[in-house]
Amino acid sequence: MIANKDTILFAGDSTTDADKKATFMELGNGYVRLIFHFLRAFRPENKYHLVNAGVSGNTSRDLLARWEQDVLAKKPDVVFCMIGINDVWRHFDTFEKEEYYVSLEEYERNLEEMAERSKEVREFVFVSPFFMEGNRTDAMRQMTERYAAVMKRVADRRGLRFVDMQAAFDKFLQHRSGISISCDRVHPGDTGSMIIARRLLEEMNIG
Amino acid sequence: MIANKDTILFAGDSTTDADKKATFMELGNGYVRLIFHFLRAFRPENKYHLVNAGVSGNTSRDLLARWEQDVLAKKPDVVFCMIGINDVWRHFDTFEKEEYYVSLEEYERNLEEMAERSKEVREFVFVSPFFMEGNRTDAMRQMTERYAAVMKRVADRRGLRFVDMQAAFDKFLQHRSGISISCDRVHPGDTGSMIIARRLLEEMNIG
Amino acid sequence: MIANKDTILFAGDSTTDADKKATFMELGNGYVRLIFHFLRAFRPENKYHLVNAGVSGNTSRDLLARWEQDVLAKKPDVVFCMIGINDVWRHFDTFEKEEYYVSLEEYERNLEEMAERSKEVREFVFVSPFFMEGNRTDAMRQMTERYAAVMKRVADRRGLRFVDMQAAFDKFLQHRSGISISCDRVHPGDTGSMIIARRLLEEMNIG
Amino acid sequence: MIANKDTILFAGDSTTDADKKATFMELGNGYVRLIFHFLRAFRPENKYHLVNAGVSGNTSRDLLARWEQDVLAKKPDVVFCMIGINDVWRHFDTFEKEEYYVSLEEYERNLEEMAERSKEVREFVFVSPFFMEGNRTDAMRQMTERYAAVMKRVADRRGLRFVDMQAAFDKFLQHRSGISISCDRVHPGDTGSMIIARRLLEEMNIG
Amino acid sequence: MIANKDTILFAGDSTTDADKKATFMELGNGYVRLIFHFLRAFRPENKYHLVNAGVSGNTSRDLLARWEQDVLAKKPDVVFCMIGINDVWRHFDTFEKEEYYVSLEEYERNLEEMAERSKEVREFVFVSPFFMEGNRTDAMRQMTERYAAVMKRVADRRGLRFVDMQAAFDKFLQHRSGISISCDRVHPGDTGSMIIARRLLEEMNIG
Amino acid sequence: MIANKDTILFAGDSTTDADKKATFMELGNGYVRLIFHFLRAFRPENKYHLVNAGVSGNTSRDLLARWEQDVLAKKPDVVFCMIGINDVWRHFDTFEKEEYYVSLEEYERNLEEMAERSKEVREFVFVSPFFMEGNRTDAMRQMTERYAAVMKRVADRRGLRFVDMQAAFDKFLQHRSGISISCDRVHPGDTGSMIIARRLLEEMNIG
Amino acid sequence: MIANKDTILFAGDSTTDADKKATFMELGNGYVRLIFHFLRAFRPENKYHLVNAGVSGNTSRDLLARWEQDVLAKKPDVVFCMIGINDVWRHFDTFEKEEYYVSLEEYERNLEEMAERSKEVREFVFVSPFFMEGNRTDAMRQMTERYAAVMKRVADRRGLRFVDMQAAFDKFLQHRSGISISCDRVHPGDTGSMIIARRLLEEMNIG
Amino acid sequence: MIANKDTILFAGDSTTDADKKATFMELGNGYVRLIFHFLRAFRPENKYHLVNAGVSGNTSRDLLARWEQDVLAKKPDVVFCMIGINDVWRHFDTFEKEEYYVSLEEYERNLEEMAERSKEVREFVFVSPFFMEGNRTDAMRQMTERYAAVMKRVADRRGLRFVDMQAAFDKFLQHRSGISISCDRVHPGDTGSMIIARRLLEEMNIG
Repeated sequence: MIANKDTILFAGDSTTDADKKATFMELGNGYVRLIFHFLRAFRPENKYHLVNAGVSGNTSRDLLARWEQDVLAKKPDVVFCMIGINDVWRHFDTFEKEEYYVSLEEYERNLEEMAERSKEVREFVFVSPFFMEGNRTDAMRQMTERYAAVMKRVADRRGLRFVDMQAAFDKFLQHRSGISISCDRVHPGDTGSMIIARRLLEEMNIG
Repeated sequence: MIANKDTILFAGDSTTDADKKATFMELGNGYVRLIFHFLRAFRPENKYHLVNAGVSGNTSRDLLARWEQDVLAKKPDVVFCMIGINDVWRHFDTFEKEEYYVSLEEYERNLEEMAERSKEVREFVFVSPFFMEGNRTDAMRQMTERYAAVMKRVADRRGLRFVDMQAAFDKFLQHRSGISISCDRVHPGDTGSMIIARRLLEEMNIG
Repeated sequence: MIANKDTILFAGDSTTDADKKATFMELGNGYVRLIFHFLRAFRPENKYHLVNAGVSGNTSRDLLARWEQDVLAKKPDVVFCMIGINDVWRHFDTFEKEEYYVSLEEYERNLEEMAERSKEVREFVFVSPFFMEGNRTDAMRQMTERYAAVMKRVADRRGLRFVDMQAAFDKFLQHRSGISISCDRVHPGDTGSMIIARRLLEEMNIG
Repeated sequence: MIANKDTILFAGDSTTDADKKATFMELGNGYVRLIFHFLRAFRPENKYHLVNAGVSGNTSRDLLARWEQDVLAKKPDVVFCMIGINDVWRHFDTFEKEEYYVSLEEYERNLEEMAERSKEVREFVFVSPFFMEGNRTDAMRQMTERYAAVMKRVADRRGLRFVDMQAAFDKFLQHRSGISISCDRVHPGDTGSMIIARRLLEEMNIG
Repeated sequence: MIANKDTILFAGDSTTDADKKATFMELGNGYVRLIFHFLRAFRPENKYHLVNAGVSGNTSRDLLARWEQDVLAKKPDVVFCMIGINDVWRHFDTFEKEEYYVSLEEYERNLEEMAERSKEVREFVFVSPFFMEGNRTDAMRQMTERYAAVMKRVADRRGLRFVDMQAAFDKFLQHRSGISISCDRVHPGDTGSMIIARRLLEEMNIG
Repeated sequence: MIANKDTILFAGDSTTDADKKATFMELGNGYVRLIFHFLRAFRPENKYHLVNAGVSGNTSRDLLARWEQDVLAKKPDVVFCMIGINDVWRHFDTFEKEEYYVSLEEYERNLEEMAERSKEVREFVFVSPFFMEGNRTDAMRQMTERYAAVMKRVADRRGLRFVDMQAAFDKFLQHRSGISISCDRVHPGDTGSMIIARRLLEEMNIG
Repeated sequence: MIANKDTILFAGDSTTDADKKATFMELGNGYVRLIFHFLRAFRPENKYHLVNAGVSGNTSRDLLARWEQDVLAKKPDVVFCMIGINDVWRHFDTFEKEEYYVSLEEYERNLEEMAERSKEVREFVFVSPFFMEGNRTDAMRQMTERYAAVMKRVADRRGLRFVDMQAAFDKFLQHRSGISISCDRVHPGDTGSMIIARRLLEEMNIG
Repeated sequence: MIANKDTILFAGDSTTDADKKATFMELGNGYVRLIFHFLRAFRPENKYHLVNAGVSGNTSRDLLARWEQDVLAKKPDVVFCMIGINDVWRHFDTFEKEEYYVSLEEYERNLEEMAERSKEVREFVFVSPFFMEGNRTDAMRQMTERYAAVMKRVADRRGLRFVDMQAAFDKFLQHRSGISISCDRVHPGDTGSMIIARRLLEEMNIG
């Protein structure tokens, strides 16, 4: 799926960003950094150009607004787009500010628009948002699943790849609570970044 | 319930502590501070001596270990003892370290021992731990309720007052999620401290 | 007096400001923050939008100069305007700089102008300046009372609400000196903010 | 009154201390520093050894407790002892903590004891506490005057010099309010330090 | 090779240490941290206790001196011991200080002694030092190889496992220079830590 | 010489500036601050407006360049202009940079020009530069005297007051070395500021 | 070669720069500073103007781009141009980024262009790049030698002076490894700066 | 004079110390550092152990008090002892504190004692104090010369080497003022350190 000299771009929110401004080559401290060093370490014969295009706090609305500048302008060969958890989260943590909510309908339109504008990209992969809560009656988990289902629908409609990242975490959640990873059940920290990185490398047929 | 010149002590964990070492008179930034200023503002004719005896991260085991020095040595007239959420939480966030778990049985023994040693205290009040999660099937909420029930049993057995703080929060949780207060659903922040302070002032017949 | 979804604005000086630039949602560390969390805690079913429009050091002249931008532009439904102590104080603490004095006549004109421009505001409340000194022969207390009387006259003339905040503090000052709150007898600190917050909530019929 | 090679010591509270630990030769930023440089500048032919023995927050009780170590151990030829404003102030600013109050009786005993132990000192001068408030009905001013009167009584009884520092400030207070110097009317700042320094140099027959 | 509830200890120098004092659970920022999170992420049903016993700058002499306290006292089930690069490096970078050199003979004795004292450890693994230089005529590479050969001899003699870490890096060095990892060719950084972590997980039969 | 409500301006170099940007009312830490507080303390019935127009490092060339903006624009009633030591000093401390030298001829022209432009000022006083070195054969002292003589000549020619500040310091220098004040013999520190302040107050007929 | 009042400019990379922005007169902490103080100390009768025109990280491409502004605009009488090690190094340390490589052909063109534009300079000296590695089979050493040979060719072709700095270091490398100076074998530190400074002073016929 | 593997110790005051605690190998930023790197750079075949035994502010009295611990305990082969400028300086800069003065007689005794205790040292060199003032009528220069003469007398009496460092500086002072090096004419800075280092290397027959 990936080839020597490819530019591989990861679009997303804080899970992708991971404080990138403060880090080496702006890779962040999360899964993008793990993938970068894995590729360097075990594919030394190839050169990949990795771009961290995550911005903390982004909803799909925010990401769409910077799509030209932060994604297309980099001329990526491969794009992984993992977005949506903030679209959901704002309904729960900022009760007063309804202007921050992104509805399911808007989310679908935003994803459609991203895909539409990215037809030049050789490999475009939608990666589902996930919530590190094993209780399936939890209100925020349920809303996250509805958004993920919409993402899958968009991917299917357009014949794009879709990675079910919630499923990758559910193996972990069978044995441990999400708050053993982070107290907000959203930020994956080192352990969760490992899960994401491995799942995406698998998707690239590397491991 | 409280009288002029009383020493009123609040024993607990981080919810009580609230970074007390960094603050004026070591009152912390939480509910103890609110109660202190409320009493000053509206009972200026009286003098109360308030003591913040909370320590962040404490379980009932930790609190019991410092009971002589941090509680009894202050010769309090009134004690509010709100403890237990860390006894519960450690089962969820530190999976590897079983030595940090406090079982329901040990919790009961710890509370019994605190009450036993405090017979000289004029007014001793147990205040239940609470978890700011409205979903009653949530595993951590359920465990918190079991610990609160044990606390009530100890209070009843000894004829001590018991404040059901979870109930005070449930009014709030009918309308908003707990993560609108704090992402970990444990630390009450300014809004939750307001709920606690008012409930305890009510218990003191002040308001 | 207040209703769901109202924008409630507090115009004033340092007592209102309370270092707002350094704080969460620019609410400051004073009475506005207390009111915000009280409303959140005990009216969780409603959404209020609170605006701290205090600026440290402001006289009525300074506040008037920023009235369009800092008050009207926010489109408030309710305005509490507590101003005047700096108009008085400058006569006492900056002896050399007469250009900073605001005379009683100018004060009256400034308040008139604020009221005149605010006819669109549903509820407009003047809140008197106060000086935390119980000795009625104190020169600064006497001048503060003259300014408060002028504010009341403006409010009466225009049929606006008027809150006598000095009266709220005088209950406290019967029992304790003002310097037990703060050495300058102007800044209310935590205790005085509690007095202000409760008095204003009362004015909103909440408590 | 002072002679070449004398050790001249100033005992007192924050007015004397003036942040001495942070300053050149631990002279502080107050009147002691002014006197030091005045003597250097205009008596260059002599060598004086000045000691700042002020400690912020001290009452007469605190000063007495460190008399041996901080005063007598320096073997001073001349001592200026200005103490008492904190004995008074604590009655007004720390309402809850009665243990900090120093009564008029204890104050008298403390001064007697200081004088008694200092018989070896060639010149011992009591300097009255002062409160920068011109209103003679002010409760704290009145209490300060009572303490100053006691100090004068002790000085007279023992044939020691007494400097009425309140009188030196009253000339200023005829024209300006005390809060033009500092908002707490206790700390003299640069202007008040000038008044103190000049009055004490006058007492030394230098000017 | 490893089992649920095992304590797994990594003894070594800065490559192992990786600034552990400043990090979460003192795991460091290197390969130990990667192994920790890999095990958590993909073996959530098990609990492992990992101990970082690396100290920056250590030679085999330094490590031996702290063997009781830092290794045996932790009662490890499994020990990985990677040491020796500083024994070599000191010959090259601190020309003046011969007292820092560890000779090949002493190195052998130190390793023997570590092994001898560790007979209670269930799994003891020697991991060779490595130098990230592909030029086999490089003087420091040649000396590193001689030390690694001695380590292998000790392991063979005692029937202990031996991991040839230089070999793991040589695959990388066929394609890229060692200074693309770090300018000193000793500290592995993120890329080299990935190589080490994967090689050791392989040794544990995990991957 | 000075009257109530006068604006009194001090033009000069670092001796005047004394780190003014970091200080209260930009008075600096030098003689201007001493004069300000002296006037406040002992002329409380009057209001004076003092302006510190010193800039560290200024030669007469630099001061002339900012004369309109920093001096005349303040509309001073009284100006004290003490300048010239840097004109001299640059010949000694920056050997390589001849472009920084101000010759005696240019110095005279600069002073003439300042005086010429300041005819509207009620009282204009030239204050001589000084060098705290008692040895009259010292090369820098001799050059300073030549510049001071030129300043006197300009003052005499125009009928302006002239203060011989070197003379004020020479009394001190009879008894102590200049390096007891500061190691560079230029910056007057606290002791020298006292000498300057007193001499200028004398010139104002205040003392 | 150099004369009184000459402007002597050093163009280069980090070896020349040596953190100049943080230092006195922007001389840096390297060899330029040593030369500056040597000339001051032992040629006090002359005035030289030294310019540090090094910028960290520069290749010949970067240096050429700023040649007008950073070199010619200073109107130097003498130029020492030591550049090229980064042209080489980028091939080894930034494997992914081929856009940073400067080929031997481009290096030659860049040097030609610098020389061409500098015909007005009285003395123009090319100083070879050097690599502190004594092993002549080392790949980076070999590439450095090829670049140095090109520089010599350019110098010879144009009749300019050429300093073989590698030779100056080789005397040192006979006895000690380059990593005893710095772990990257590129940055000369204090010891290497001494070697460079002495070699260049020799070139100026000073020593 | 010096040989391979020698320990060479420099005893002195701030000129030697040069902020050593903050620097690499505690060499300081002064002449000792220059000598260290010069020896490394141009005698790479030898190993010298250099010890900076300077302490800022030291007089001969202070240096003698730490002679055993700071000098003899290092077992030096060669000692350079440059001391005395603070013995002189204290007479000029700390007028009030006579206890800090070291008289000419005591200075002589202190030097004698140092020499007496150092008979085991192979090469012991006295280095004269110096004052960077060219005017021979300057009081401090004259006193410095008297102390240097005493040092020479001690050296001659005991047959020890003596370096006249004032002479080394006088060459410089013929052309430039001492304050072009540093405003206090005592601290040599980079330029003066160069003069000292070269003179001492000359004494060691290295250059």
